[in-house]
Amino acid sequence: MGFPSNIFNSHSKQDGDFFLGMTKILGFKPKNIEIYKRAFLHRSANQKDKKGVPMNYERLEFLGDSMLGTIISKYLFDEVPEGDEGYLTKMRSKIVSRKHLNELGKDLGLISFVKSRIPKSHFGENIHGNVFEALVGAIYLDRGYKYCEKFISERVVEPYVDIEQLEGKVISYKSLVIEWCQKQKKTFNFNVYEDTGNDELKHFAVKLSIGGKIMAKARATSKKKAEERASKRAYYALQDKMDKS
Amino acid sequence: MGFPSNIFNSHSKQDGDFFLGMTKILGFKPKNIEIYKRAFLHRSANQKDKKGVPMNYERLEFLGDSMLGTIISKYLFDEVPEGDEGYLTKMRSKIVSRKHLNELGKDLGLISFVKSRIPKSHFGENIHGNVFEALVGAIYLDRGYKYCEKFISERVVEPYVDIEQLEGKVISYKSLVIEWCQKQKKTFNFNVYEDTGNDELKHFAVKLSIGGKIMAKARATSKKKAEERASKRAYYALQDKMDKS
Repeated sequence: MGFPSNIFNSHSKQDGDFFLGMTKILGFKPKNIEIYKRAFLHRSANQKDKKGVPMNYERLEFLGDSMLGTIISKYLFDEVPEGDEGYLTKMRSKIVSRKHLNELGKDLGLISFVKSRIPKSHFGENIHGNVFEALVGAIYLDRGYKYCEKFISERVVEPYVDIEQLEGKVISYKSLVIEWCQKQKKTFNFNVYEDTGNDELKHFAVKLSIGGKIMAKARATSKKKAEERASKRAYYALQDKMDKS
Repeated sequence: MGFPSNIFNSHSKQDGDFFLGMTKILGFKPKNIEIYKRAFLHRSANQKDKKGVPMNYERLEFLGDSMLGTIISKYLFDEVPEGDEGYLTKMRSKIVSRKHLNELGKDLGLISFVKSRIPKSHFGENIHGNVFEALVGAIYLDRGYKYCEKFISERVVEPYVDIEQLEGKVISYKSLVIEWCQKQKKTFNFNVYEDTGNDELKHFAVKLSIGGKIMAKARATSKKKAEERASKRAYYALQDKMDKS
């Protein structure tokens, strides 16, 4: 496929770090690491292949965007057997929304791998989601459909998708807790940090403090889910007080 | 998955015909024929499953539409290595356009399998493309991604996709021939008929007559391609005359 390796200084420490970083994010070892490098190459890097064709992640983003939509379609098809076409379309667009993908890409820290000539602080929010899509495209090229499906299940569906919450049937515990704190004029703080430990996949831990006191802790594969879990624990601990307020 | 078979009178002659018809269109034998029956069940048939959930092809259409887009994305990604994201998006939307899918579904004669309470003559054009998409969804459920890719390659890409023509770089021979006939005030006729013979896949044959005389014949897996081939032959036969006209 003609992915040149010279631009990344093959066999350097940087290269080894990239391989390890990818393995942690993917949950498996890349076969052709050059494809993944392409997934992080911003157009501003102005790289061209032998034929003078610009090289950057945009073509992989095109492929990954489509792949992601299809895998989420299949997930919804199986998960909600009573949902009609309109329902499935609406739910899919919520799951693959720009906002959602940006959150995902940010949680995975993908921007740290981006190669560009523009300072990273100058990028808008969408870089996170765009690079996430490009990564999905790279997985498909490197390992095929099944690996893509597995990655999306572990990285998108399991940590981020809660159908009842997307349907608006269940309000988030986080918002219940925040509302209570605001009413009670209590300070609150979600202290989130990476806590992968021995797990194959990246994990996040959260300490939720209310009025300066740690009320709950939780751990999950996404920031959102960890916050939600901690909030649920705090919610039950505070429930008596809430009911009375 | 709960596809009831009673609505189609299992083990009837009709059932056997459906299986044979599908095998001819698919190029392989269905494993779970019930899934394919669902792909042709119009909402007007008012079928419901045991839980009272309406059964029709619309959910399969949702799945197939997405699957088709992804497979065409991958095809274009490989086929046009120099095309950027914008180009790939534009070309994909041409290939999977409503008009194109309707033409496909019509060529395959899919409407003859549709179960509905509405007379078929009352359907609009889109029924052809919708059922085609539902069929792609059924293939995916029945046989997985690889079979879907093979079907789309044989049924969409090979017979219908000509990148140079889609790019507008090459004008169609059919339009050159028609233009010439109109200028010369000659009658012309494309006589298309099914001519599958011993082939695994459905084929079409065309006899092109100009001024009442057969000028060229051709055979292909789509009407469009057969017409284009016959036109190309007629074009070269007439070229001398055209150049002088």
